[in-house]
Amino acid sequence: MSQSPTVNRRVVLHSRPLGAPTHENFRLHESAVPSPDDGEVLLRTLWLSLDPYMRTRMNHTASYAPSVALGEPMVGATVSRVVDSKHAQFKAGDLVLAQAGWQDYALAHGASLTALDGIAEPSHALSVLGMTGFTAYWGLLEIGKPQPGETVVVASASGAVGAVVGQIARLKGARVVGIAGDADKCRYVTQALGFDVCLDRRAPDFAAQLAQACPAGIDVYFENVGGAVFDAVQPLLNTGARIPLCGLISQYNADSAPPTPDMLPGFLQMLLFKRIRLQGFIIGDHYASGFDAFQRDMRNWIAGGKVKLQEDIVDGLERAPEAFLGLLAGRNFGKVVVRVAHD
Amino acid sequence: MSQSPTVNRRVVLHSRPLGAPTHENFRLHESAVPSPDDGEVLLRTLWLSLDPYMRTRMNHTASYAPSVALGEPMVGATVSRVVDSKHAQFKAGDLVLAQAGWQDYALAHGASLTALDGIAEPSHALSVLGMTGFTAYWGLLEIGKPQPGETVVVASASGAVGAVVGQIARLKGARVVGIAGDADKCRYVTQALGFDVCLDRRAPDFAAQLAQACPAGIDVYFENVGGAVFDAVQPLLNTGARIPLCGLISQYNADSAPPTPDMLPGFLQMLLFKRIRLQGFIIGDHYASGFDAFQRDMRNWIAGGKVKLQEDIVDGLERAPEAFLGLLAGRNFGKVVVRVAHD
Repeated sequence: MSQSPTVNRRVVLHSRPLGAPTHENFRLHESAVPSPDDGEVLLRTLWLSLDPYMRTRMNHTASYAPSVALGEPMVGATVSRVVDSKHAQFKAGDLVLAQAGWQDYALAHGASLTALDGIAEPSHALSVLGMTGFTAYWGLLEIGKPQPGETVVVASASGAVGAVVGQIARLKGARVVGIAGDADKCRYVTQALGFDVCLDRRAPDFAAQLAQACPAGIDVYFENVGGAVFDAVQPLLNTGARIPLCGLISQYNADSAPPTPDMLPGFLQMLLFKRIRLQGFIIGDHYASGFDAFQRDMRNWIAGGKVKLQEDIVDGLERAPEAFLGLLAGRNFGKVVVRVAHD
Repeated sequence: MSQSPTVNRRVVLHSRPLGAPTHENFRLHESAVPSPDDGEVLLRTLWLSLDPYMRTRMNHTASYAPSVALGEPMVGATVSRVVDSKHAQFKAGDLVLAQAGWQDYALAHGASLTALDGIAEPSHALSVLGMTGFTAYWGLLEIGKPQPGETVVVASASGAVGAVVGQIARLKGARVVGIAGDADKCRYVTQALGFDVCLDRRAPDFAAQLAQACPAGIDVYFENVGGAVFDAVQPLLNTGARIPLCGLISQYNADSAPPTPDMLPGFLQMLLFKRIRLQGFIIGDHYASGFDAFQRDMRNWIAGGKVKLQEDIVDGLERAPEAFLGLLAGRNFGKVVVRVAHD
């Protein structure tokens, strides 16, 4: 076994952002590598997942989960290697899925870990076979319920969730219209992922393009953006449309209600008149009931080349803040994972 | 058989309201009683249902159904007596459920009618055994899905839909908090209908009273009002709450978005963080799949004294506009039905 590590680098929350976060909100901090107590395991982070929900944990007010405390490492899912174990189920060398956060090393209770046996691409446990893939699968199939021939519109179509939503919707026989942040992403979404259409949301006539791309209206809108994209979607929603709502990346930096007219009453009236189902969900609620079926289906689809996912790999823990700011600004291309250590 | 009728009184839409409707928007018009063609039936209206959705049909813009044309009778469900029939399934004297609208006589195609065989209280076909009862039943059980011990909040608790929602929720073991428009209605809701609590929405400290009445939060909010009542409900909604949305009576008179801050982005974020299901529905969509089960359950509950409903009976077609304006202003007490003719 290699020499015992001594220094643990951690990216901690240094200050809370007002509006968009900046580099100033993070600090790279060095501390001693801790030792496991009974039942604990010491983990070395190999891959760290970066996801939009992390923005909500930087606020003082809790979202659906507690905020990160100032001076503490940012939270996040990781693929980690067991370095030292005082838990009977794990031994040094095991590969596990953990919530180790933005740091080189972490202690975890053995009960919080999932063994990653025989996974061909370990980083997939953070993306297409993990949280973001399961978000796409559960939200689309349990809330969206696309029927053959229906039109499904997917925001952030080249992103970790949207790319998978659109491919599953195609497998279910739907017509799929993606929305992405530039022409390169749109090309990837149609050519590599097989969406029927993909539109650049920054085009000045985006709303008109969307209407043209959806001549039969929209039956399912998979929402993870909010803001102007949703504004363009609303008039096109069909009677009986379904809106799985798993994120609102465009809104996470807002710190007060916009000073525009109140659109909520009209929005509710639209939901009523069009009999629309809008449902927020947090995928963490659904592992017990749905994760096994997801794993079975998704492994088959990946093996059959039916679902693909581009990873946007960033090397080095110290680059996590930069990559995270880029993710919030839409500068990533695919699922963002940080390679914290080579295996 | 009685002498053939010659004059048909009709309450027609004379002008479209801007904001709250007034008497000026209606006109009582007399025309000749028509004669049925092959396949048609001539109906005499006995009971006319008045319901908030009718406000949306007065607008120029369609809601989920076409607007009433100027000069045409207002739409509405009726219990009617067959006067003359050229349809094989019906004969003079039959009692039927129809959509005859605000008039003494109407022609209808036989296929659009439902025979009312052996109904003890014919007006119940317009309320607890009809559209409003089915709205309560379907929305509460299919979307709200109350579990024993959960807290269900019901707006317009003494109204045609709310009264039934609360009684069914009690039958399912939920704790039920009603909201009504004055102290008399609240007394009726708790004493006669058996809700656990009922609050007067006009109390200056209504929001604080609601918080106190829901110490474990709100699991189901049956929405048919909107506006200030919904504002008070939102902070109390629990994670995983369900909101069946069948009406927005407080909003029907609005003709533009309120000039306040835009509450929609924050509302969507709340739906996401709390994993809330919000679903608009129009009960007309669900007769084929759900009406028989509703009839079976509701007849049992009524026979067993488990569901009651107060009717607010108005005598005379000419009083329909006054009663309808009262309904929109919350001056009714129970389900509003107009007795157009004695049987």
